[in-house]
Amino acid sequence: MSIRSRHLAKDDLGFDSRTERNRKRSINADGSFNIKRKNNFWTEFHVYQWVITCKWSTYWYTVLSIYVGANFLFASLYYLIGPEYIVGIEGEGIMAYWQCFFFSLQSFTTVGYGGLHPKGMLCNVLAGYEAFLGLMTFALATGSLYGRFSRPEARIKYSPNALISPFKEGKALMFMLCNNKKGTLVEASAKVNFSWVEKDENGNDTRRFAILDLEIDRISMLALSWTLVHHITENSVLYDFTPEDYIKKDVEIYILVSAYDDTFGQTVHSRSSYIGSEIISNAKFRRPFFTDANGNTVMDVLSLGDYDLLP
Amino acid sequence: MSIRSRHLAKDDLGFDSRTERNRKRSINADGSFNIKRKNNFWTEFHVYQWVITCKWSTYWYTVLSIYVGANFLFASLYYLIGPEYIVGIEGEGIMAYWQCFFFSLQSFTTVGYGGLHPKGMLCNVLAGYEAFLGLMTFALATGSLYGRFSRPEARIKYSPNALISPFKEGKALMFMLCNNKKGTLVEASAKVNFSWVEKDENGNDTRRFAILDLEIDRISMLALSWTLVHHITENSVLYDFTPEDYIKKDVEIYILVSAYDDTFGQTVHSRSSYIGSEIISNAKFRRPFFTDANGNTVMDVLSLGDYDLLP
Amino acid sequence: MSIRSRHLAKDDLGFDSRTERNRKRSINADGSFNIKRKNNFWTEFHVYQWVITCKWSTYWYTVLSIYVGANFLFASLYYLIGPEYIVGIEGEGIMAYWQCFFFSLQSFTTVGYGGLHPKGMLCNVLAGYEAFLGLMTFALATGSLYGRFSRPEARIKYSPNALISPFKEGKALMFMLCNNKKGTLVEASAKVNFSWVEKDENGNDTRRFAILDLEIDRISMLALSWTLVHHITENSVLYDFTPEDYIKKDVEIYILVSAYDDTFGQTVHSRSSYIGSEIISNAKFRRPFFTDANGNTVMDVLSLGDYDLLP
Amino acid sequence: MSIRSRHLAKDDLGFDSRTERNRKRSINADGSFNIKRKNNFWTEFHVYQWVITCKWSTYWYTVLSIYVGANFLFASLYYLIGPEYIVGIEGEGIMAYWQCFFFSLQSFTTVGYGGLHPKGMLCNVLAGYEAFLGLMTFALATGSLYGRFSRPEARIKYSPNALISPFKEGKALMFMLCNNKKGTLVEASAKVNFSWVEKDENGNDTRRFAILDLEIDRISMLALSWTLVHHITENSVLYDFTPEDYIKKDVEIYILVSAYDDTFGQTVHSRSSYIGSEIISNAKFRRPFFTDANGNTVMDVLSLGDYDLLP
Repeated sequence: MSIRSRHLAKDDLGFDSRTERNRKRSINADGSFNIKRKNNFWTEFHVYQWVITCKWSTYWYTVLSIYVGANFLFASLYYLIGPEYIVGIEGEGIMAYWQCFFFSLQSFTTVGYGGLHPKGMLCNVLAGYEAFLGLMTFALATGSLYGRFSRPEARIKYSPNALISPFKEGKALMFMLCNNKKGTLVEASAKVNFSWVEKDENGNDTRRFAILDLEIDRISMLALSWTLVHHITENSVLYDFTPEDYIKKDVEIYILVSAYDDTFGQTVHSRSSYIGSEIISNAKFRRPFFTDANGNTVMDVLSLGDYDLLP
Repeated sequence: MSIRSRHLAKDDLGFDSRTERNRKRSINADGSFNIKRKNNFWTEFHVYQWVITCKWSTYWYTVLSIYVGANFLFASLYYLIGPEYIVGIEGEGIMAYWQCFFFSLQSFTTVGYGGLHPKGMLCNVLAGYEAFLGLMTFALATGSLYGRFSRPEARIKYSPNALISPFKEGKALMFMLCNNKKGTLVEASAKVNFSWVEKDENGNDTRRFAILDLEIDRISMLALSWTLVHHITENSVLYDFTPEDYIKKDVEIYILVSAYDDTFGQTVHSRSSYIGSEIISNAKFRRPFFTDANGNTVMDVLSLGDYDLLP
Repeated sequence: MSIRSRHLAKDDLGFDSRTERNRKRSINADGSFNIKRKNNFWTEFHVYQWVITCKWSTYWYTVLSIYVGANFLFASLYYLIGPEYIVGIEGEGIMAYWQCFFFSLQSFTTVGYGGLHPKGMLCNVLAGYEAFLGLMTFALATGSLYGRFSRPEARIKYSPNALISPFKEGKALMFMLCNNKKGTLVEASAKVNFSWVEKDENGNDTRRFAILDLEIDRISMLALSWTLVHHITENSVLYDFTPEDYIKKDVEIYILVSAYDDTFGQTVHSRSSYIGSEIISNAKFRRPFFTDANGNTVMDVLSLGDYDLLP
Repeated sequence: MSIRSRHLAKDDLGFDSRTERNRKRSINADGSFNIKRKNNFWTEFHVYQWVITCKWSTYWYTVLSIYVGANFLFASLYYLIGPEYIVGIEGEGIMAYWQCFFFSLQSFTTVGYGGLHPKGMLCNVLAGYEAFLGLMTFALATGSLYGRFSRPEARIKYSPNALISPFKEGKALMFMLCNNKKGTLVEASAKVNFSWVEKDENGNDTRRFAILDLEIDRISMLALSWTLVHHITENSVLYDFTPEDYIKKDVEIYILVSAYDDTFGQTVHSRSSYIGSEIISNAKFRRPFFTDANGNTVMDVLSLGDYDLLP
């Protein structure tokens, strides 16, 4: 009992044991948290965070809107100053307004053809200010575009299922992962937490947490696949779990993997989780790599997670 | 005694035990150091540090001043060379000078409408040099703008108070924190130091320091709130403190939290502190998250730190 | 036996013990993995990873193709709108088309001479959009160019051979490394793994893995050369290896070095490996540095790895 | 003896014990290595490393040379194509050549006034290529300018001397450091190595190395000064050193400090060293901070390292 309790790590995942029995998983399979937040909008909102992580369509829509909006603003200012201060404008009214808009486009992007160009103090100063503002605005637009483009991410592929497989004299919980893209991951490490619901002394459902010790929790190079193995010994919290318990006790397994990525030149993190229905009892993973006729080792990413049910 | 002294960590916070009894806190609630520095101005000053951390108004004022100043400088040079070397300039004297200024604006920003353009060796070379300098100057302006925009920061929200709450058979010092913005923090860790003033063997006030051991000092995912708990056992330096002592002994609790931020792709640090008057005895935090009708866990950031006084 | 097995670290290199006897080395001498991957093309492909690591010729070819391609696209659009909407175009047909192309070049790069400039709504809007797109496209091109230029890399030079040299009363496996470029490496650390093939209980070839303990596995400053020494004691897996075994048992030694690089301001990683035929028995490295007449220590990088065979 | 030898850390500084008695220090006071390197020029040279670390005058000279050189190259090409293909060029021969040069300046910087603008296939294509190349070249120039500007560096100020001061019942080697600029350093840690020359068993001079254990080797916040203290106990290698030995035995103390810098958002490293003549026996540092009349703690960076000789 005392040994097993060593595994009990209440709170240490950042989820609280007091959480009610919750049918929705806490971590989605893609690694995002499944938690709603209630906060003051402007405190919660972080411009950079939003710009870097929003959808591409939202990003382009926002950037283009700011671009067009800024130009309409400056077009209006030029029009107020008077279209006659922009050399090359012909016509009047809406015609002149549009040419103010075109002049603004050409100033904001610093393309400055010169077919239209400013004269007079006010118009020149405004054009100089617009070019300045254009350069600063495009710095944010192009910086965040490149930031999105070069954002570090660990594209780890996890086996769709965790298996209970034979291991040594007993059995073990196993799942696999590999790098899902070209490029080199080194110094990979993994932490696995386990949570389930059980009755506390008062007969109420309580969510409990435990760290699952791994046979190997750190590898030097993630060149092939990596099978993470939790040996289910007498000291494991899984020792008394029947196959049905994984669903009945609302089990969730949380995985946190970090590795140094040569491409980004920094450490990247990846998260995933398995819920009870994704745990298969008495099965064994197939080996996802082989040596081909030329003596090359071939890693077959597509077959990662294929398994055979044992009799 | 020997066990308790294990907690005494003189100097290890970077503040010296010899510091006089100082009524002003050493670390402000926002994490900045409350320490004045005396140093040679140019040694102390670090341009990049200043540009990245100064107020937005100061930043814009500085950037615009450099922009305007550089253009007046170049305008004067063009005027010295002779306005007649800029094709398109009409008028003389101050009129011509302003047009030199406008030409400079158009060169510095590389907008180059062409309504004004250089002729002659000197004017052309100067314009070519100005365009070069403009590109280099804007690199610093736009780079630092984006640097400010994308600067990593941990927006951790701390409970406004630390509480002395019942814990196990005894009591504990507790405070809470959570992520105050959208985005994901993982691998969070915390260190807590405690300082107070007491009489030394000569009867002089001495500031003493101790590390406060935490029940959990590292969590894998900061998805909800995190309650930091220092159990006040016989071995704790807090064991003999009465509620009044927290104020009388000029207590300050220093907190250093670090976590990996998915948005910035790097580890961020956050600091805070509590002084004696912010420590509430015999109270208990309310739970700042709940499960809603749809089975979603909801983290209520606004209620973080709400507590009930115990009878 | 029990002590020696402490060194056995099955799987912990990320290569599996089940790998068949494979005549090709797993890690090339330049540190890249010698492993083929089978994966869905678009999953495997990561644009940023590719852009940062592809060959320079491929990079320039790609960037120029996109530049030229985008301009042909816009040229065609301008031509469709009608060359008469670009002021300054003379001639017709293919002549006019080329001038549309030139106008597009001048808009996309924001050079905008103005010899050609747009008139009319459609042409002006398209030109404004092209300038916007040009700025965004060049952000990716210039960002990735600078990303390639400033990409952190550890240019560690490894001795071409590992030696079995006399050491203390016995012998040791030794190899050397040094910084192969100017600049400062500090806080260097090394991990060495060893793999070989032997018969398992069923008489099948199995690849086995072991960590090789080093006398010193971490140095504060990599100023001169660093000799990595694995003392071959009774507890070492190398204890029973004869010189012939290194080739016969298909040995591969994997080296992972990391160090903090002052230039890049971050930790860099380097990998290399030795195969059996690169291990020389009974030899001793020459010392690759000396003190010159002026009392300066001189590191002779070129002579790193020179050795003498012992009698 | 066995306890003291625990401190002997041959090689672990990256300098070899076989180094001859070398009158020049290995690490300069500014932290750079005092070691010459012999290597193939192009292997040794790393463009980015050079561009980021070269002197400002060298940097500007190089960038301007490339700018001017590229423009002369393109000017020559335009001249070869024929000055008549650039609209706006007047005159012939050297006059025309210079105008080709000016046109090149205006294309390379994308300022494109248009007073000069290309006509004809060849000239237009070349101008389009030059604008492209200009944008890419300026990306490297502006990127490296900003890289130099924002390069992380720890501006740690070390006391000019290390002292042998009274400590507890005995004495200790002490030196001080503090942050030499505005901005916040947290999680600072220090490693101190010691080297000296003594006769080996054959009577030859050998350089020996030892790690000096510190009373505190890690502090949470470097807000004030930090006094690094090596207690000279019986187990210390310094135990038998007389004041004269520090010079006679050619002592060098190596210091490596790292800390997390809030401004740069990353860990920075600093190195320094003391040689024998910089070690003062029987002295005591003055305290470099005080509490002013308003209760503020004031850190006096300028007085850091001031000391009093003891009687």
